[in-house]
Amino acid sequence: MPELRKDPVVKRWVIIATERAKRPNDFKSAQKKKEENKFCVFCYGNEHLTPPEILAFRPEDTKPNESGWWVRVVDNKFPALNYKEDVKRAGHGMYDMMSGFGKHEVIIETPNHDENLATIPYKQIKEVVWAYVMRYRELSKDPNLKYILIFKNYKREAGASLSHPHSQIIATPIVPKRVEEELHGSKQYYDYKERCVFCDIIQQEKMEKTRIVEENDDFISFVPYAARFPYEIWILPKRHTSNFGEITDEEVDSFSKILKDTGAKLINVLGDPPFNYVIHSSPVGNPNLPHYHWHLEIMPRLTKTAGFEWGSGFYINPVPPEAAAASLNGEPESK
Amino acid sequence: MPELRKDPVVKRWVIIATERAKRPNDFKSAQKKKEENKFCVFCYGNEHLTPPEILAFRPEDTKPNESGWWVRVVDNKFPALNYKEDVKRAGHGMYDMMSGFGKHEVIIETPNHDENLATIPYKQIKEVVWAYVMRYRELSKDPNLKYILIFKNYKREAGASLSHPHSQIIATPIVPKRVEEELHGSKQYYDYKERCVFCDIIQQEKMEKTRIVEENDDFISFVPYAARFPYEIWILPKRHTSNFGEITDEEVDSFSKILKDTGAKLINVLGDPPFNYVIHSSPVGNPNLPHYHWHLEIMPRLTKTAGFEWGSGFYINPVPPEAAAASLNGEPESK
Repeated sequence: MPELRKDPVVKRWVIIATERAKRPNDFKSAQKKKEENKFCVFCYGNEHLTPPEILAFRPEDTKPNESGWWVRVVDNKFPALNYKEDVKRAGHGMYDMMSGFGKHEVIIETPNHDENLATIPYKQIKEVVWAYVMRYRELSKDPNLKYILIFKNYKREAGASLSHPHSQIIATPIVPKRVEEELHGSKQYYDYKERCVFCDIIQQEKMEKTRIVEENDDFISFVPYAARFPYEIWILPKRHTSNFGEITDEEVDSFSKILKDTGAKLINVLGDPPFNYVIHSSPVGNPNLPHYHWHLEIMPRLTKTAGFEWGSGFYINPVPPEAAAASLNGEPESK
Repeated sequence: MPELRKDPVVKRWVIIATERAKRPNDFKSAQKKKEENKFCVFCYGNEHLTPPEILAFRPEDTKPNESGWWVRVVDNKFPALNYKEDVKRAGHGMYDMMSGFGKHEVIIETPNHDENLATIPYKQIKEVVWAYVMRYRELSKDPNLKYILIFKNYKREAGASLSHPHSQIIATPIVPKRVEEELHGSKQYYDYKERCVFCDIIQQEKMEKTRIVEENDDFISFVPYAARFPYEIWILPKRHTSNFGEITDEEVDSFSKILKDTGAKLINVLGDPPFNYVIHSSPVGNPNLPHYHWHLEIMPRLTKTAGFEWGSGFYINPVPPEAAAASLNGEPESK
């Protein structure tokens, strides 16, 4: 029987449509074909074809914008927002507009064109996470940037236009609507319960144990109770922190580890599916909130979002979260 | 230069990314290939393969669930929600759930398997709209249904699983989040201005004239100022009504006409693109609102929604709304 479940943070209802239930094999992606030696601007030797590097991890005896690096951050060549603009607001009849001020960067995660979360070494993910952290901390200093969004689009079906492993950062002059919703929902919960809703979610998941995917000293990953998408997974730090920029050195280690282990399970069960992941953190000017808790959301792109979802903000998920967690953990599927 | 624009109803900011600007030809879809005579459950002769009809327009000398009909409404064979369920709410630890009560119907728009909005006769669209109206009015009588969503997914890329022309109705036991947002935003505007925000939008569009696509006595269609998607189009009735169910007979005529004319322009410029459209109406129990205004939103599926959009609720639209309207109207593109 279908079931409606409510996300405790943003109060979004989701339909768990068991009558449309699907098994992992229904979603299995074709393994990524090894690409022919196609020309790629993110590969060694083509550093001059990207905007100049903002940050790179490279041997001391190499020069900026030369080969040798293992992680490289550059401005997006076709930025959605422009750092040279002034921050201006204006009316247009009854409408409102702002100049397109902001920052749009690309993190090239490895020199190896064909790496994915299953094959990339844990050590290399740690370097990528350090690049996230360093850019996040640096951009946090600009008082005109109100929000910093770090995300990854993996594969064309998930919106990636280049296949070389990369993540992106977009820093915006306003706090985005979806983030405001999370802040608002978690504040309402806090006002009522005097506890962080995400801390409570961790406790509930540890008690129930039916949706957990991975756990280590500092982090837990699980399929959320009201998952919008099949095999959606959230990774939360166990320590209450609202600001991703305040991650500790030890936490960078264990965050990289759980991201790798969780990603590997996803790829193992679904065969290298397209996905997006996004780091949700508190707004820049308001980093330490008792009611908010930074986290990462992984959204595999296995179903199409259609008219019903766009019109209602309601999602239909054909895979019950408990069944998704069970197959990620290699447990036999119950019908 | 990129520009940020704010939707005046839900206050969603959109990035109009002119540096990523695209011309209509970049989006042009391949013309729908005439399908081989593939078996289709919505075609004549297969009426026994769908659930029994709820409503059909057919000659008097034909029997229900036989051929001869020109519009046919049946229950969805794989419903997202189930009408046999009781409406039950329950807690699950810290979480909340409800039984999956609701109604999920399919409107088969024509017996002709290969029709689209460019080829379908206006007279036939009118019949489809009448089916929408009749089902809407009928479902409105059930006090357990709080919201009725009528929508169309056109082509596989837009979430359609069958290619025979059809629309869907999902009636839910709660008012969906996205609708609540629209109601809330338009209420705030009304409280401040004492006018309906949608009525003001119509006035602004008629004054500016740069985003209008079609207009007739009762309706106007235009690319919204803060369009999320390239070639997004809204159709609004000029008369203030919040409830789709209260459309008049004359308005059914002119609504069908503007839907056909707008759709034909879209297909003409973009070559039969995948799209979703959704009718936004007031909730069932609260149909007559001074601040809300029913309308239809058409969302062509030309770009991929990726990590940034999912994480922020912010959209990046590479086609300025004025440029989209100009090409829909066959005007030369300005750079």
